[in-house]
Amino acid sequence: MTYRAPVDDYTFLFDHIVGLGQVTATDRFAEATPDVTSAILTEAGKLCEDVVAPLQRNGDLHPARLENGVVRTSPGYAEGYKAIAEGGWVGMAANPEYGGMGLPMTVTSAVNEMMSAACLSLQLAPLMSQGQIEALEHHASDAIKDLYLPKLISGEWSGTMNLTEPQAGSDVGALTSKAEDNGDGTYAVSGQKIYISWGDNDFTDNVCHLVLARTPGAPAGTKGISLFLVPRNLPDENGNAGVANSLKVVSLEHKMGLHGSPTCVMQYDGATGWMVGAEGGGMAAMFTMMNNARLGVGGQGVGVAEGAYQHALGYALDRKQGKTEGETGTIIDHADVRRMLMTMRAETYAARGIALMCAVAIDMTTATDDPRWKSRAALLTPIAKAFGTDIGNEVANMGIQVHGGMGFVEETGAAQYARDVRVTTIYEGTNGIQAMDLVARKMMDGGEAAGLIFDEIESAAEAARATFPKMAETVWQASESLRETTEWMISQNHRVRFAGAVPYLRAFARVLGGHIHLQSALNDQGGAHEKVARFYIQRLLPEHDSLLAQAQAGDYDVYALTPEEFAA
Amino acid sequence: MTYRAPVDDYTFLFDHIVGLGQVTATDRFAEATPDVTSAILTEAGKLCEDVVAPLQRNGDLHPARLENGVVRTSPGYAEGYKAIAEGGWVGMAANPEYGGMGLPMTVTSAVNEMMSAACLSLQLAPLMSQGQIEALEHHASDAIKDLYLPKLISGEWSGTMNLTEPQAGSDVGALTSKAEDNGDGTYAVSGQKIYISWGDNDFTDNVCHLVLARTPGAPAGTKGISLFLVPRNLPDENGNAGVANSLKVVSLEHKMGLHGSPTCVMQYDGATGWMVGAEGGGMAAMFTMMNNARLGVGGQGVGVAEGAYQHALGYALDRKQGKTEGETGTIIDHADVRRMLMTMRAETYAARGIALMCAVAIDMTTATDDPRWKSRAALLTPIAKAFGTDIGNEVANMGIQVHGGMGFVEETGAAQYARDVRVTTIYEGTNGIQAMDLVARKMMDGGEAAGLIFDEIESAAEAARATFPKMAETVWQASESLRETTEWMISQNHRVRFAGAVPYLRAFARVLGGHIHLQSALNDQGGAHEKVARFYIQRLLPEHDSLLAQAQAGDYDVYALTPEEFAA
Repeated sequence: MTYRAPVDDYTFLFDHIVGLGQVTATDRFAEATPDVTSAILTEAGKLCEDVVAPLQRNGDLHPARLENGVVRTSPGYAEGYKAIAEGGWVGMAANPEYGGMGLPMTVTSAVNEMMSAACLSLQLAPLMSQGQIEALEHHASDAIKDLYLPKLISGEWSGTMNLTEPQAGSDVGALTSKAEDNGDGTYAVSGQKIYISWGDNDFTDNVCHLVLARTPGAPAGTKGISLFLVPRNLPDENGNAGVANSLKVVSLEHKMGLHGSPTCVMQYDGATGWMVGAEGGGMAAMFTMMNNARLGVGGQGVGVAEGAYQHALGYALDRKQGKTEGETGTIIDHADVRRMLMTMRAETYAARGIALMCAVAIDMTTATDDPRWKSRAALLTPIAKAFGTDIGNEVANMGIQVHGGMGFVEETGAAQYARDVRVTTIYEGTNGIQAMDLVARKMMDGGEAAGLIFDEIESAAEAARATFPKMAETVWQASESLRETTEWMISQNHRVRFAGAVPYLRAFARVLGGHIHLQSALNDQGGAHEKVARFYIQRLLPEHDSLLAQAQAGDYDVYALTPEEFAA
Repeated sequence: MTYRAPVDDYTFLFDHIVGLGQVTATDRFAEATPDVTSAILTEAGKLCEDVVAPLQRNGDLHPARLENGVVRTSPGYAEGYKAIAEGGWVGMAANPEYGGMGLPMTVTSAVNEMMSAACLSLQLAPLMSQGQIEALEHHASDAIKDLYLPKLISGEWSGTMNLTEPQAGSDVGALTSKAEDNGDGTYAVSGQKIYISWGDNDFTDNVCHLVLARTPGAPAGTKGISLFLVPRNLPDENGNAGVANSLKVVSLEHKMGLHGSPTCVMQYDGATGWMVGAEGGGMAAMFTMMNNARLGVGGQGVGVAEGAYQHALGYALDRKQGKTEGETGTIIDHADVRRMLMTMRAETYAARGIALMCAVAIDMTTATDDPRWKSRAALLTPIAKAFGTDIGNEVANMGIQVHGGMGFVEETGAAQYARDVRVTTIYEGTNGIQAMDLVARKMMDGGEAAGLIFDEIESAAEAARATFPKMAETVWQASESLRETTEWMISQNHRVRFAGAVPYLRAFARVLGGHIHLQSALNDQGGAHEKVARFYIQRLLPEHDSLLAQAQAGDYDVYALTPEEFAA
């Protein structure tokens, strides 16, 4: 199981498909020249291959554990994390003023994806810190920024997000954690939070929690929620980690996968915290960073898909079995094994392209503040999150299937990919919630952002007709039927939209994937990209048709059974 | 997590859809009257609910282990197995002459499915014995039958199947285990076998292995393979388990799931065995029982789907969260949660119906020896196996999703369903192999058996037009396009067929499911069956279209990439 960073794929997508050039043409990202980007990808790829990937099994076999209230991490994780931090990868997107590299999200996404492929459970630690860094950059006071950002960006300290409470789940507005003003600029934070990824570790000097809580007398629902920074150790006068705060890890979850990542139940008992952003502005602050965090999780799915694909491909090229139609004498000559591997490859590529399209839109928003880019980023984010993680699951499961019986045996590692990636369709907003976000909040513009994407896909398909008439027509038609369904969707009430949201999101991703593959074929005529594109457009893209039928099926049949009939 | 045996569903399917009446109208199965069947289902259901289901978590938390060469099973498994054996469930389909109940496979399948839902890892033990009993009934000498069948049928002894060897995998013809004639009617069997489910246990007096091996000088490939019965303990003069044979369990696999079922690496060192069937007839003997074994594994998938569905439904009816559109205040009111639950229910029901259609065909073959029933059983078997297990996986994964974050936490049990059922798409012939079997061997009749099924579906749909015009038309059209694809498929070479085999099989199952749901709606107008049928036919059946497009996509794009381009 040797992971190889797919640097060429990123470069090809940057140069020919998603247009990193427009990002680096802005003042904000002018320093990310092709040379710099190439060096970054090569260096990060090497780290992932040589240092991070070898840790993947350790985390699974020797899960993080809680010892006397302290989290003990898996063997090698401390060293792996230090290598990531020393390479500057925790703060690669962060503001250079505080020690960050200031890289575009497009490049950051590629690096995060490689790291996820190499070792998802460890990668989650820097990903959480990245989210916190972004939140503080946007919402914290200068005093907090000056104190915390350098430590977080260097990786000396790490960050977490504390949203979920047992009774509230995805309904964040129902949370009950409290924060009372101490009268000295600090708050006393109390409550229990669950599913806190990397809620503690034994390799950073401090762990900083961003906690959603209510101030006394705050209104019910999301409007009464504020955001607080609550460090495990209170900073001393020199800004180093000092005395312990009043918080603790109560327990770790016993999970299906991702064993190397401690998922903590956290208890806050009047812990000292600082408000970040305005009172009652907790959800707004969360939403700012949510786009990036969701894209990050989508990239985790893509990364695991790539890892699982490479792993299964290696097996298929090596395993001799049966009489085959081809010449290698290994199972890759079996038509169905090839069909699986081609599916894995084509889907992973499509999901990667979508994630990078989304990242470009985020970067262009950052650089230009153009509302069209902002709407595009907002629209693409739930698609990148849900499709990336769905594909991560599907590809990892296909990887098991390629291995046959060996796939069910843990020592091959195929099963771990599937177990680890399983959570990605759930956390950072379930994929059902992503789909609801897409058809409701992200369609509040009347479908304008979506329409611009369809225009772009269709004019690109028009231009491709001369070279690939059949593929171009298929993609054009798919986009057109997605446009029609989108218009229909916008005319419906929310319940009808929600009943068709998940298939609609997937159809959207299918069409985006068709566009990405078609453009890739144009830029690699006769090459591997064209071959994979033909497979995708002929075999996988047609799925959009039945998905759109499902998307438009209405809510009647979904609500036809009464709860009593369900339970009967 | 309380499993409730879906006895009403079986009865409904028996009475209205699959036609158990024609089975019990034969002399062979005349005793399985509706009263008897109903009593059987109720009693078996009660056992599964009260005794078997409570063991499921034990197996996962306390896996079977190897201690000094002896398998120690999970807590409670010995008692659970004894209850199954004492109820007569191991031998429920077996010949009454040897102590069996002589039940139709249709009823047996329902009981096996319930037991799989309750505890898959334990159910696998009697399922393996059932396969062995069937093989011996058909192929063993009277002496062997008289000695072994009563013990196997009563459950005092258990049985296993030993096909796979490390170097051969699914290519059984490449196996190298040897059996040398001892000159006294016995053979000395030597070799290593892997993936031997329940290769040993601590609750039966003997474990009897059916082992495929080669006699000296036998031809290469499958023709040189014979079948041998090799008991762990050699029977003494009274027919009881006597001295130990020269075989041992070398190790147990560490698996993704099914921890309660010991998956053994077996070593035979000149172990004493008896040939079963003719020399060189090992594969033929295996094929006889393979239909039933494959149907049994398909039923495992359906059983786990049912278990996972009930488990998720219970959570959705209980979990309060968020503002919903409905009146219960629990998450079942969310449109997407309902969409998932309806999908789980509709798919499970379709897969169950297909399995039972297949079982009826097997019973009618047994009872009448009519070649049309035989062809139908042969055709439906790979579909029942692959679709049942695919649905088992998909539904179990959806069950995790319904649970949200709790689905990833092991203590809820949702993840266990997904981990346990994962192997079912692999063992007893991978689902890729099932699909190849369907488009090659099972189409050697020029599509006759398939054509008869399409005729049946279409005339039933015609008759349904008066009541449900739209649903009937959808099912009719789906069957017709499947018929056209089938004709196209038969005109193609094997490589082209194999490249489209998996989507073709799934499309076939989709159409069968549409038929089953439509007929169920007719027999329950205005009731839950009609409501679920509408959901299936409107939302899930349309998938057949893109599947058929994939099925007919040819082999060009699958083989377009060279192995070098794959590895580049």
